[in-house]
Amino acid sequence: MKTPVTVLGLGAMGAALARAFAAAGHPTTVWNRTPGRAPDLTDVTRAKSIGDAIAASPLVVVCLLTNDTVHDTLEPIAPELAGRSVVNLTNGTPEQARRMADWAAQQGVDYLDGGIMAVPDMIGGPAAFILYSGSPVAFEKYQPALAVLARPLFVGSDAGLAALQDLSLLTGMYGMFAGVTHALALVSSEKVSPTAFTQDLLVPWLTAMLGTVQQIAKDLEYGAEPGAAGSNLAMQAAAFGNLIDASRGQGVDPGLLTPMGDLLKRAVEQGHGDEDLAALVRLLSER
Amino acid sequence: MKTPVTVLGLGAMGAALARAFAAAGHPTTVWNRTPGRAPDLTDVTRAKSIGDAIAASPLVVVCLLTNDTVHDTLEPIAPELAGRSVVNLTNGTPEQARRMADWAAQQGVDYLDGGIMAVPDMIGGPAAFILYSGSPVAFEKYQPALAVLARPLFVGSDAGLAALQDLSLLTGMYGMFAGVTHALALVSSEKVSPTAFTQDLLVPWLTAMLGTVQQIAKDLEYGAEPGAAGSNLAMQAAAFGNLIDASRGQGVDPGLLTPMGDLLKRAVEQGHGDEDLAALVRLLSER
Repeated sequence: MKTPVTVLGLGAMGAALARAFAAAGHPTTVWNRTPGRAPDLTDVTRAKSIGDAIAASPLVVVCLLTNDTVHDTLEPIAPELAGRSVVNLTNGTPEQARRMADWAAQQGVDYLDGGIMAVPDMIGGPAAFILYSGSPVAFEKYQPALAVLARPLFVGSDAGLAALQDLSLLTGMYGMFAGVTHALALVSSEKVSPTAFTQDLLVPWLTAMLGTVQQIAKDLEYGAEPGAAGSNLAMQAAAFGNLIDASRGQGVDPGLLTPMGDLLKRAVEQGHGDEDLAALVRLLSER
Repeated sequence: MKTPVTVLGLGAMGAALARAFAAAGHPTTVWNRTPGRAPDLTDVTRAKSIGDAIAASPLVVVCLLTNDTVHDTLEPIAPELAGRSVVNLTNGTPEQARRMADWAAQQGVDYLDGGIMAVPDMIGGPAAFILYSGSPVAFEKYQPALAVLARPLFVGSDAGLAALQDLSLLTGMYGMFAGVTHALALVSSEKVSPTAFTQDLLVPWLTAMLGTVQQIAKDLEYGAEPGAAGSNLAMQAAAFGNLIDASRGQGVDPGLLTPMGDLLKRAVEQGHGDEDLAALVRLLSER
């Protein structure tokens, strides 16, 4: 028999997780503080109490709105949790994940924290992945079950590392979306097809620039070769003003871009004009 | 014999262009307002005057610091330019390109405006491309010569369209770089290798999210199917605060991200909470 799994929380994501477990043949028990959520969810056992829900499975997956709610929900039933594994897929910060891991350790609970890199619709599909950190024992033991949700990636025994890298990926994505939003506003200011521009130019260009992204990380970790930057920060800071002015000229609010221009300027003022973009990373951390 | 080419302007980019023409066997004449620039440049003819430079070739490539300089440089020698083709690769705005095209038309000059998507080191290499707009006749005639610089892409007979799309690509890139800068500052706040994170997670993730970028463009052009957004703006606006707070918690200045959060909030306030990111594009243009 496949590992029985309990899912606590039936929001859009929790319901998607339970659905994927059930579809893969795991005996799946669900519980939600407010009963009656996700009425379309079939092939699962709806537990009458959280105690019943936890008693049903050695693997308890938690997906609630906040980590405060996770703590308040699990605290009263800590004795029943002892000896089981908790996989917490609630969105949170590295610090919250570490506090949960400490609490779990005190209760004799094996704890994994996870960051879901997907929207609910993608769960069970090929493109989704989930970052895990915390107990390597729990990860090894339950990896086959967790794999039915999304590709599982273990990023370290420090429970905070999944949340840290989840956060980092999301911020990287939102930067890209902000740039794309601005770029599409610019082409929309004239008779240019957004889809043709995006397919023929923007996506190939951003794909090519991912090579520069790799270079920034390398320069940050190992130091840049002097003068290796194709275009140093001083040149980029000088040219950035044109991007802002030309955007205004096209009737496009430059607000999404201005902080990058300001950061470039600050880097030059602080003597990093001949360095490359890795210097900006350090500047963001120095305040 | 290959088309003789004249390059006006020997900054880092102009010199790279002249070098590529000469290397490909084009008789190459160069001129710079201040003599003696790019002393390493060989196999080219250094014209004594701009008049000599222009007389040498039917194709005149211009790469100066600003379009004001381009105009001031070409205006006095307009009679010599008549009947020739000018390819202006100086950085500029759509409006400047159109003014140059109007001026050129009055002088009987075939005009192409271009946007170089490369740093000087990439000229002549496989990854560089150059957007052209303006005279289709000049583009067709000189495409083989221009192809030695970088892959040539003609984007329309409206001379402003190359500058517009050049600008758009650069702003898209800087958004992505801003996101990456923030993401790398976050992972650097803990013991995570920036290169491993970038290679194993960030680059694959951003590559996957380029699918969403295509979707944004499609929604913008053709309208979104209601409820098709995996995660609507209201949900994203609510979650964005966590990204900002968690960044601060890690000692990372959230300044590069805050305008995106503010724009999401504004979109929700203005009633776009159930829409997707395409709504942000319209909002940027509406102020």
